[in-house]
Amino acid sequence: MSRKALGGVDPFSHPGTAELIAAGLREDVGRGDVTSLVTIAPDASGTARLVAREACVVAGLPLIARVYDALVGSGVVSVDLAVGEGAAVKAGRALARMKGPLGTILTGERLTLNFLQQLCATATLTRRFVDAVAGTGAEILDTRKTVPGLRLLQKYAVRVGGGRNHRFGLDDGILIKDNHVAACGSVAAAVERARVAAPHGLRVEVECDRLEQVEEALGAGADVILLDNMTPAMVGRAHRVVAGRVTLEVSGGIQLANVRKYAESGAALISVGGLTHSAPAVDLSLEVKGASAGRKK
Amino acid sequence: MSRKALGGVDPFSHPGTAELIAAGLREDVGRGDVTSLVTIAPDASGTARLVAREACVVAGLPLIARVYDALVGSGVVSVDLAVGEGAAVKAGRALARMKGPLGTILTGERLTLNFLQQLCATATLTRRFVDAVAGTGAEILDTRKTVPGLRLLQKYAVRVGGGRNHRFGLDDGILIKDNHVAACGSVAAAVERARVAAPHGLRVEVECDRLEQVEEALGAGADVILLDNMTPAMVGRAHRVVAGRVTLEVSGGIQLANVRKYAESGAALISVGGLTHSAPAVDLSLEVKGASAGRKK
Amino acid sequence: MSRKALGGVDPFSHPGTAELIAAGLREDVGRGDVTSLVTIAPDASGTARLVAREACVVAGLPLIARVYDALVGSGVVSVDLAVGEGAAVKAGRALARMKGPLGTILTGERLTLNFLQQLCATATLTRRFVDAVAGTGAEILDTRKTVPGLRLLQKYAVRVGGGRNHRFGLDDGILIKDNHVAACGSVAAAVERARVAAPHGLRVEVECDRLEQVEEALGAGADVILLDNMTPAMVGRAHRVVAGRVTLEVSGGIQLANVRKYAESGAALISVGGLTHSAPAVDLSLEVKGASAGRKK
Amino acid sequence: MSRKALGGVDPFSHPGTAELIAAGLREDVGRGDVTSLVTIAPDASGTARLVAREACVVAGLPLIARVYDALVGSGVVSVDLAVGEGAAVKAGRALARMKGPLGTILTGERLTLNFLQQLCATATLTRRFVDAVAGTGAEILDTRKTVPGLRLLQKYAVRVGGGRNHRFGLDDGILIKDNHVAACGSVAAAVERARVAAPHGLRVEVECDRLEQVEEALGAGADVILLDNMTPAMVGRAHRVVAGRVTLEVSGGIQLANVRKYAESGAALISVGGLTHSAPAVDLSLEVKGASAGRKK
Amino acid sequence: MSRKALGGVDPFSHPGTAELIAAGLREDVGRGDVTSLVTIAPDASGTARLVAREACVVAGLPLIARVYDALVGSGVVSVDLAVGEGAAVKAGRALARMKGPLGTILTGERLTLNFLQQLCATATLTRRFVDAVAGTGAEILDTRKTVPGLRLLQKYAVRVGGGRNHRFGLDDGILIKDNHVAACGSVAAAVERARVAAPHGLRVEVECDRLEQVEEALGAGADVILLDNMTPAMVGRAHRVVAGRVTLEVSGGIQLANVRKYAESGAALISVGGLTHSAPAVDLSLEVKGASAGRKK
Amino acid sequence: MSRKALGGVDPFSHPGTAELIAAGLREDVGRGDVTSLVTIAPDASGTARLVAREACVVAGLPLIARVYDALVGSGVVSVDLAVGEGAAVKAGRALARMKGPLGTILTGERLTLNFLQQLCATATLTRRFVDAVAGTGAEILDTRKTVPGLRLLQKYAVRVGGGRNHRFGLDDGILIKDNHVAACGSVAAAVERARVAAPHGLRVEVECDRLEQVEEALGAGADVILLDNMTPAMVGRAHRVVAGRVTLEVSGGIQLANVRKYAESGAALISVGGLTHSAPAVDLSLEVKGASAGRKK
Repeated sequence: MSRKALGGVDPFSHPGTAELIAAGLREDVGRGDVTSLVTIAPDASGTARLVAREACVVAGLPLIARVYDALVGSGVVSVDLAVGEGAAVKAGRALARMKGPLGTILTGERLTLNFLQQLCATATLTRRFVDAVAGTGAEILDTRKTVPGLRLLQKYAVRVGGGRNHRFGLDDGILIKDNHVAACGSVAAAVERARVAAPHGLRVEVECDRLEQVEEALGAGADVILLDNMTPAMVGRAHRVVAGRVTLEVSGGIQLANVRKYAESGAALISVGGLTHSAPAVDLSLEVKGASAGRKK
Repeated sequence: MSRKALGGVDPFSHPGTAELIAAGLREDVGRGDVTSLVTIAPDASGTARLVAREACVVAGLPLIARVYDALVGSGVVSVDLAVGEGAAVKAGRALARMKGPLGTILTGERLTLNFLQQLCATATLTRRFVDAVAGTGAEILDTRKTVPGLRLLQKYAVRVGGGRNHRFGLDDGILIKDNHVAACGSVAAAVERARVAAPHGLRVEVECDRLEQVEEALGAGADVILLDNMTPAMVGRAHRVVAGRVTLEVSGGIQLANVRKYAESGAALISVGGLTHSAPAVDLSLEVKGASAGRKK
Repeated sequence: MSRKALGGVDPFSHPGTAELIAAGLREDVGRGDVTSLVTIAPDASGTARLVAREACVVAGLPLIARVYDALVGSGVVSVDLAVGEGAAVKAGRALARMKGPLGTILTGERLTLNFLQQLCATATLTRRFVDAVAGTGAEILDTRKTVPGLRLLQKYAVRVGGGRNHRFGLDDGILIKDNHVAACGSVAAAVERARVAAPHGLRVEVECDRLEQVEEALGAGADVILLDNMTPAMVGRAHRVVAGRVTLEVSGGIQLANVRKYAESGAALISVGGLTHSAPAVDLSLEVKGASAGRKK
Repeated sequence: MSRKALGGVDPFSHPGTAELIAAGLREDVGRGDVTSLVTIAPDASGTARLVAREACVVAGLPLIARVYDALVGSGVVSVDLAVGEGAAVKAGRALARMKGPLGTILTGERLTLNFLQQLCATATLTRRFVDAVAGTGAEILDTRKTVPGLRLLQKYAVRVGGGRNHRFGLDDGILIKDNHVAACGSVAAAVERARVAAPHGLRVEVECDRLEQVEEALGAGADVILLDNMTPAMVGRAHRVVAGRVTLEVSGGIQLANVRKYAESGAALISVGGLTHSAPAVDLSLEVKGASAGRKK
Repeated sequence: MSRKALGGVDPFSHPGTAELIAAGLREDVGRGDVTSLVTIAPDASGTARLVAREACVVAGLPLIARVYDALVGSGVVSVDLAVGEGAAVKAGRALARMKGPLGTILTGERLTLNFLQQLCATATLTRRFVDAVAGTGAEILDTRKTVPGLRLLQKYAVRVGGGRNHRFGLDDGILIKDNHVAACGSVAAAVERARVAAPHGLRVEVECDRLEQVEEALGAGADVILLDNMTPAMVGRAHRVVAGRVTLEVSGGIQLANVRKYAESGAALISVGGLTHSAPAVDLSLEVKGASAGRKK
Repeated sequence: MSRKALGGVDPFSHPGTAELIAAGLREDVGRGDVTSLVTIAPDASGTARLVAREACVVAGLPLIARVYDALVGSGVVSVDLAVGEGAAVKAGRALARMKGPLGTILTGERLTLNFLQQLCATATLTRRFVDAVAGTGAEILDTRKTVPGLRLLQKYAVRVGGGRNHRFGLDDGILIKDNHVAACGSVAAAVERARVAAPHGLRVEVECDRLEQVEEALGAGADVILLDNMTPAMVGRAHRVVAGRVTLEVSGGIQLANVRKYAESGAALISVGGLTHSAPAVDLSLEVKGASAGRKK
């Protein structure tokens, strides 16, 4: 696995993930799984496979064990992973095998799948963007346009897909956007204010919607310039203006069909909101095999 | 607004929603909004409009005030809603107006938009499905294939879009699926077990993948039959077999292009996972107007 | 053990139970057990027996280990159970044996007993009601009249005692009561409204205080009828009217002395609030045996 | 109201109470009140009375507003109290009046009643014990035999009923019981250890099961002696031995029928576990009046 | 008030602060204030002044109202602030006035003072360091050597005292320290690794213990260099080597007696752990005035 | 180890400590340790020593394992303690050794040190006070002047240093202070009120600022008298007045230079706020040894 897939924060041992799993169980299992209780013998055990029903890039498998541990206690359901994070698999491939009480396996099925279908979706879409710019040197970034509660996991899936992460929140990076510029009067004024007041460990990035603003930003001492909603041609012009003095990022209207043009226009970083807000869920399923007979209650 | 838009649980005063907003602020704002702090004067106030950049069905507006109240305390940012929940708006329409400290408005922008872009997406897609079956008597339902943590809100958005809700979790409905059937040996055995053991207030619904199972389910006394992954023709045959004795639901492979055929084949209920797991985010933005000068800090 | 004792939700691994144990320790142990600290040597170990001082049906033993694990970490106090859940024991019978640090055993004693004395109380009283209707086919149900925070545990104890559970909350069943009827104008109007708007997986149950309402409810399509505060004779008449078309439940004024008469009058379900709100605590005690000498601190 | 009713901790603004209300709503309301939603128009408002169906001493009325505020936000349901805490009322007396959205009033009904039926039970039973010893100078105390999660509220109800509180937990008082004595070898050894190690602000109380132990405890410097499971005659003898040097408490086997004999035997303090673990619930009900018509949804 | 005092995150509306206040009340008030309950009439009201008993720089006054609101609900105790945050006051100066129920004022006294005595300590010590380097252009920074749980508040107090904040945690800045250097083999290797993998919005800061490492860091492309445990003379030499190419920070062994020498040696940033781990508490007290008589309970 | 070091509450298994560690990790680690991630290979393992850089009394070592367990799960980092709690060590002494993933060891370093530098500080200062009164029979006590959130840990460190604990909060002891006296009118009135209303297990302690009040307190039946801000001479006079009838405590203005005089003047208990609010942090560091090469990511 590449540096990018690993080069970030492990979201699985973060307390927010445990809370999200707990919230997921509260909303899905609630007071208990009535259907399993009335159809599955309490002593029935079984094995299930988690299967990809369509080709995808795999992300999130470590969540399976965490969901089951949260549901019934550590180790009651044993989980064997069949592929690594970041693997590109074909339809029909088994991703993991779960073994344990059959009713419990079924009770935890939906939350497990709901997590994985989203994370695989993001990893898969990211990989497609990354492949589309292969060889250009440009890197694919996510944004803060994530689903509330899932940011750490979604940004992890971006890394698994080969992308890099933009800032994680409002507190670990400076990005002066149009509304900040408007409040300050100009790009130059905003960048200057930020340079004086910013923590010394943070770069100052500013969004520019027009080419004139790029000059202004350079003059005021910006470290990174985000070109928003520009055509590849405009990005190319900005790239020549900047001439390597600062890092260039592009965003807005980037799609698989045009991302390579942006990459070839000189942007080092390309951020794509759709990676985390609109990737269509990957079709996954859980298939039970070899359930023991079980003494019917 | 129709019964369907209102006929369910108000998710906004549910404690899970407050926790989700808190989690959203933790992950997006963290220790504070550095950019606003270094560019916006602390005493600057302003007004912003939340605008739909594409046509959509609106859902989730009551969350705006709840996000800002959670961020800075009750009423510091005042919110006026410009349209009602469930309104179908065109691109460019302002949905709400926020007034208060400018920095605060910007700090809460992203979480607000992240919530609304998902809920409007679900309401919009639901509305399209509902319109597609208009006049057939069939109703569009959601599933449990939701994003972890967002179930109550997403199911609310389905109602806003004109759909109805399937069960909310594993504890408020019985749905015997293929894995349960396999564990019991047959559809008939599974339904019989469930009828004996089920709480007296719950109906027994069973999934059938083949027509023979429909007969079996009827014979065993199922109350509702879910036809999974059948063609409209097969649904039509099942409909004639059932002859009104139980409620018929269909699921699996339902798309906008074929949903009407299913509706015309006799299914009373059509459940669509994509409403909540794959609706593409609606493009929304926040536009600041008339920021007061503000004494620069 | 019978199906009834097991046919429900396991409350011990539910997160609400862990929170209740934590709350119980906060309120009982607080910052620490001063008495044990000033009288018991820190290195003293011991064994204790939990003993029933009166005959009872046992419920809740799995809580013992969970209380001690929450108090000092997993496995520090080892717990061996001497009888099974649902066992009917005589006075003097040891129910469990705890082994570990003596001070810790004493610190967790009271919360352990406070849980078990309530759950055994409910299981014992339920068993007496169940025995009283033996052979009639009627089943004993609980209600939502539980002690705040203890519902899952109390409803579990009802199952252990041989009863069945009514709905767990307001969200997993429909029960139209007198106040809802009043708001709708009539039993018929209320049932009709509910049938249109109810989730398709829930039956519609309605409370009737008078025999005329039973006819009305039948006509409007109720699935279950609750006869409230009627005499056995009235229940018999309702039973003949209903003639097996819907399930009949009775509630209100049911006591051990009259419950069999109700059961013989044709009610399939008999719900008794007192199982969970007024069962007198069972007398239990913890007896320390063979404490090691311990080096006095 | 007397000093005793007020002389303690206000449990209503304690964070544990807010958490208990939240837990109560989670378990009773869950994802929403389906019955009210399908039968009550969303814009229907109404007034309800909370009525005592049997004579009782009232305790816990401030919880009503707190339950409704937690359910739907502050002040949506207005609550007027008709009697004071500690009032002895007859059957049929209205205790409070709630006004607000009809559906909401019904949704919060059960949790409200579940709290009050327990607290009134404890206050009522306490008052009977207090009345039974009137004029003797003895005081009625509670114990730590409370229902998990409800200790602060139950101990408050004891005060409302005219009783006093024993220690609230293991950390705010020293009470050396039989198991501690056994670990130390003798009452004298246990009291001596405790006197050396105890925080200087706490008295040392020791349980004695036999008269010889009373002498021993006196000699070792105990501040309070608890006579456990002694007859009134034995208590009288102990009283003469002690001769006013320490405070005497009795516990074990105290009932309404014999409590006065204990009080007259010289015990200053009489502790009764049944006040908090076995008081039968008081029968309360909520009656809706004058519901507005409401536009049916 | 200067930019520095305001130029950061408002810690008072951060959820962590509410949790810390709640924890503080749990540990100090617990189940209630026995002393006030047994000595203060429940209806007694009063006014109290919070007074500085020694000269100090004031920080944390907004916490007063938040403590009382958390204790008894919003607005029960009204708080008027007499000086602004950052004011330098003399001994004897009243900082705030509280008005409300007398018992409540006393119950919340200690937590209020415990917060303020720490925050004023940090602000006061910071101000002394800031004053000591006045005119040199150097800025005083804090470190991550804070008291667990108090970081946001302590870093706020540093700003109030005129200092600036270093990174808030491990996630919003890169600082390569000796242990990281050791793991990479050299300063150059560590800086190079970081430059490749670091998020694009973060500068790369590296700690150098020897002058040779400064050259190495410059060559590898560090953005900021932290000189650790160097003498002012060594700092001067590093300053000349760096020649303005990167920002220089010094730390280690900085005291009031030598800080100016460091500032004059060319360090732009001087970080001082003692601001947050060893500032001696400022002596504050709460004085009650004009308590109303109160009807003795 | 002496009785005092052990004679109290174990704060390490208290839920408040787990919450404080979690809060500490949230504020220090946040979304992840960027520096370690970009410089340390994910598969690098290592060993580190926690070293005292100055002489101190050790307290808090059991927290090391708890911090690492909370960070990455139980046992991933193994911790061996090299000295016992309460040991007096010289500068340079290794206190503990940690072994595990190198990045993880570095990520948890700061929180670990932040805890220990405070607890060792308190234990060390306490030991100095205890040594200063050696042989006089007086005991050193802490106060409630602790850092919010750290009370249990700080009071534990006092015990480790050889001190004793005053009450832990407002609910486990009665201490009538000047403001309570003022509200009651006199010391005598306050003590009398308290004696009537106090729980029977608590002694009544009262603060006296003048010698006349000592007589008054004795007459009213106080159990303990706190002499506040008196000179040793005044304490001596009070001691003669009291003549052993009650316990005497002194506080206010106690320093290492004068504490022995107070001890020799007859005070049995000497309480010192500075133990917990102003003990200067002990200088500790973490030194990595023998890091494995690690495959660079």
